[in-house]
Amino acid sequence: MAYWNSRGLRGSALEEIINFTNESYRKKGLALFQKIPTPITPVEVDNKRRTITLAYFDQNSTVDYMGVVQGIPVCFDAKETAQKHLPLQNIHEHQLRFMEDFQAQRGIAFLLVYFSTLGEYYFLPLETLQVYWEAAQKGGRKSIPYAAFEKKYQIFQQGGGMLHYLEAIARYLEETEPKGSDGTC
Amino acid sequence: MAYWNSRGLRGSALEEIINFTNESYRKKGLALFQKIPTPITPVEVDNKRRTITLAYFDQNSTVDYMGVVQGIPVCFDAKETAQKHLPLQNIHEHQLRFMEDFQAQRGIAFLLVYFSTLGEYYFLPLETLQVYWEAAQKGGRKSIPYAAFEKKYQIFQQGGGMLHYLEAIARYLEETEPKGSDGTC
Ligand SMILES: [Mg+2]
Ligand SMILES: [Mg+2]
Repeated sequence: MAYWNSRGLRGSALEEIINFTNESYRKKGLALFQKIPTPITPVEVDNKRRTITLAYFDQNSTVDYMGVVQGIPVCFDAKETAQKHLPLQNIHEHQLRFMEDFQAQRGIAFLLVYFSTLGEYYFLPLETLQVYWEAAQKGGRKSIPYAAFEKKYQIFQQGGGMLHYLEAIARYLEETEPKGSDGTC
Repeated sequence: MAYWNSRGLRGSALEEIINFTNESYRKKGLALFQKIPTPITPVEVDNKRRTITLAYFDQNSTVDYMGVVQGIPVCFDAKETAQKHLPLQNIHEHQLRFMEDFQAQRGIAFLLVYFSTLGEYYFLPLETLQVYWEAAQKGGRKSIPYAAFEKKYQIFQQGGGMLHYLEAIARYLEETEPKGSDGTC
């Protein structure tokens, strides 16, 4: 019997910092994000105590966060690695498919990746993940190298502990938006 | 000790029909919705069996579904009533605040309401909910009357069990979008 305090199960430090950032974004009216809880199927419930006495983890979780940023639908998953690459085994195929379908609906999907030994955070566009995913399917390397994380998409921690990832989203939008699609005409 | 099969806990028939509809929307490339799982905090875990042996329900659930419909961020909560009105006690203040903040970010937030004795489904715009919520705060009636559910926003069940609520969203958009904001200029 293990108590629910081991990291990675309980909600990592990375998730806590993102939750804190999202609360701040919400207060400032900059964005609204919802943490998607780990899907758990309760089996036995003690109704008097509102306690669950038997439950299972569902397998079909999709992304960690979904939200809206000033009219733009956004979803992302937070990933942490102690290595100088992001192993692709950290990403499940149904997560990738969800992100692809989200982007096909004209939302923005990305990974927020934390290199814990370097203390660096990056926005990784879905397109980059797809390139490495497909290469791995064809027998290529099974991870995304540090070099694939672009400096322009580095995310910095700010005063009060904020991880200001909206900046990276804004930069990504600037670079990927077709010219003249900003409503000016 | 109760087993997890009582309706309303396990996921109602209404939720099942919405989940089925969402799967169909996803397959057709019309929309992508995510059911937001009930937030449950595990306390004790049997790691060998991947079983949770003690857990609690969190109180801060927000909406039942979040997603994206062809570039538009959408969230909604499903509500069922056996009466000829929707009691406002079915809606929690933090749900309302979440929907308000979602709409402030230029998403669309609504209730999908099922009148079970009539067998009728409606799209209820957040604005209508707000009117009745505020009236109730000032001592007015504590429910939304059936008459407040507009026929133009009725949702019909279609072949194969689909509950085609995207039609109601499209109608709502047509009626609320400012003229000339559709990008034609
Ligand atoms: Mg994650
Ligand atoms: Mg509901």
